[in-house]
Amino acid sequence: MQIYVDNAATTKMSDVAINAMIPYMKECYGNPSSLYTIGQKAMEALTDARERVAKVLGCEPREILFTSGGSEADNQALMSAAALGEKNGKKHIISTAFEHHAILHTLKKLEKMGFEVELLDVHENGLVTPEQVAAAIRPDTCLVTIMYANNEIGTIQPIREIGAVCREKKVLFHTDAVQAVGHIPVNVKDDNIDMLSLSAHKFHGPKGCGVLYFRKGIRLTNIIEGGAQERGKRAGTENVPGIMSMTAALEDAVAHIDTNKDHLLAMRDRLIDGILEIPHSILNGDRTSRLPGNVNICFEGIEGESLLLLLDDKGISASSGSACTSGSLDPSHVLLAIGRPHEVAHGSLRLSLSDDITAEEVDYIIASVKEVVELLRGISPVWRDLMAGKKEFHI
Amino acid sequence: MQIYVDNAATTKMSDVAINAMIPYMKECYGNPSSLYTIGQKAMEALTDARERVAKVLGCEPREILFTSGGSEADNQALMSAAALGEKNGKKHIISTAFEHHAILHTLKKLEKMGFEVELLDVHENGLVTPEQVAAAIRPDTCLVTIMYANNEIGTIQPIREIGAVCREKKVLFHTDAVQAVGHIPVNVKDDNIDMLSLSAHKFHGPKGCGVLYFRKGIRLTNIIEGGAQERGKRAGTENVPGIMSMTAALEDAVAHIDTNKDHLLAMRDRLIDGILEIPHSILNGDRTSRLPGNVNICFEGIEGESLLLLLDDKGISASSGSACTSGSLDPSHVLLAIGRPHEVAHGSLRLSLSDDITAEEVDYIIASVKEVVELLRGISPVWRDLMAGKKEFHI
Repeated sequence: MQIYVDNAATTKMSDVAINAMIPYMKECYGNPSSLYTIGQKAMEALTDARERVAKVLGCEPREILFTSGGSEADNQALMSAAALGEKNGKKHIISTAFEHHAILHTLKKLEKMGFEVELLDVHENGLVTPEQVAAAIRPDTCLVTIMYANNEIGTIQPIREIGAVCREKKVLFHTDAVQAVGHIPVNVKDDNIDMLSLSAHKFHGPKGCGVLYFRKGIRLTNIIEGGAQERGKRAGTENVPGIMSMTAALEDAVAHIDTNKDHLLAMRDRLIDGILEIPHSILNGDRTSRLPGNVNICFEGIEGESLLLLLDDKGISASSGSACTSGSLDPSHVLLAIGRPHEVAHGSLRLSLSDDITAEEVDYIIASVKEVVELLRGISPVWRDLMAGKKEFHI
Repeated sequence: MQIYVDNAATTKMSDVAINAMIPYMKECYGNPSSLYTIGQKAMEALTDARERVAKVLGCEPREILFTSGGSEADNQALMSAAALGEKNGKKHIISTAFEHHAILHTLKKLEKMGFEVELLDVHENGLVTPEQVAAAIRPDTCLVTIMYANNEIGTIQPIREIGAVCREKKVLFHTDAVQAVGHIPVNVKDDNIDMLSLSAHKFHGPKGCGVLYFRKGIRLTNIIEGGAQERGKRAGTENVPGIMSMTAALEDAVAHIDTNKDHLLAMRDRLIDGILEIPHSILNGDRTSRLPGNVNICFEGIEGESLLLLLDDKGISASSGSACTSGSLDPSHVLLAIGRPHEVAHGSLRLSLSDDITAEEVDYIIASVKEVVELLRGISPVWRDLMAGKKEFHI
């Protein structure tokens, strides 16, 4: 059995997404900036895509900027807010300790540029509260950036309430919604969001495509200078095939959020319950305020990497956390942020499901994880020490 | 007849490029940073692509950075060179007046950051000389950036000689080779190039993909921060389908440079000679040191925009110059740089051919341009004044 359960890392492109792309590669391949018919048709497609993406997010077409992905959108959002802040003498930025590195590393860059960055603690359940945000906002705060749903543990933040706090205090609010859009309902107006990043390949769209929503009136800072594309805010010939594909994938994903939700939740919960039967295992992140496809569990006494390799042998593609940092030997900064000790954080497993997961597959995963964890514990010196009482169990 | 002769703006994707992309969208769709088989296969593909691109350019795989396109590569090259310069107290940058806006606008940004930018004059034939570069280099020069071939008039710069001057004087040399790669032989080692930008959609590859070659030892500055992709120098999940497609398109284009050259040159020259039969018309840019597919001609007494719209009615997709600035009413900065007066620069036509252009199509274009220019001159008050001797002809 081959089961891909790392949809938070990337997804298989859907037929809908592929079919929406092809015509713009060979037929309507013109440059949207060109005056002739085939160029104007590409521009019409782009305009259509912008309107459709805006409709999905609940904003206006002119508030949509097409980027090369979520990371670029995150970078541009933060650099723009920082430039606006600097202009007004405000150089304090609030974020959280468990953001994606596209946020954390851009914040590091801003720190070097003289900004003061305050990372809010994340509760053990993987949530930050509007009260924390309200307490942290100062007169010189120029930006609050908090992810919509965490990429590792899937916890969904109280974005609407945090947005309301920011709006009341007149502070720009950005959210990295790369893991949320297409998976749970997101509406930038209802959710009081000023800027939002999304990435197409997280909802069965193409890689290399993303969106930065920016509320009208917010002046963006370019990170790619050049031609006048995207009203002068993002240079480079528009990736029309990718944008059309992303748009179709987004509409398709959002249209199925409700219809697929019950099935996905049932599969997720079956998976969680089944795996938690393993002794000394713990679910990471709140069980309720959680993406419908996310499972993240730590096991005492094992190494996540070995777990993944053995699961791969059984045809299961899973991860220990973010793919973007998988080359690193450090434990997940997300798991550390919610208070897991180093030893436990090392033994993590993330399973991120797509809608088409079946009960049979879930049961196969549960059985495989049980088997592999038992195997690994059998050869683990740490586990031996734990069992012998020479070390204390954390979980 | 439908003829697309704006291949300098963008190209139709080739079957080779499309076929190279599809398997990575539905089958080998894993995230290259993932440990499991499907992720590692994506990583192997990426490694393979990097080796193949490096081989084409004549460099090492680790000197290849995959970007979202030529503009991003240009931006990162310049920002990197500037950061290195600043570190060494060198803040003088040499470029030319007719670069692409991805270069010129990034240079404007650097000027605001305190760099001194010197734009070399371009000769009437559309060329700069190594002597000009040598004369301009100062002890505090940190970068020379000169495009390989101009995007509007197609003139090919003496890059190898300019590179030699820079190497001798120990100044970093970048070239925007977006119009050159895939169309004429380019080898970064032979050509003494330290950094080079290219864009896939200019050689029948996908939009949204490009490359920055950077000689080993050059420390790049990130413009997109985040995950550890591209050895930490460009964050964001790699666009594997796009990169595989770009690689195939690049190999295909380069493999056919020699075999297609005679035909393309014959078609180009037939087009130039035919159109220059129109009185008061002039070829822009050197006739010899010129891209094999580029024609750029100015006509006295007409507006380029009307020309394009009427040619479009005849099924011919052409441009007046760069697509990236076509929304602008200003005349081409390239044509002004080679000394064309405003009135003449407004009446420009760029035809950029692909390999499959036929003699029949060329003859149809010539006849159409003749007809349309005559029509437009017949209703042009400027042309009436010129013919009545009330104004003087420039050309």
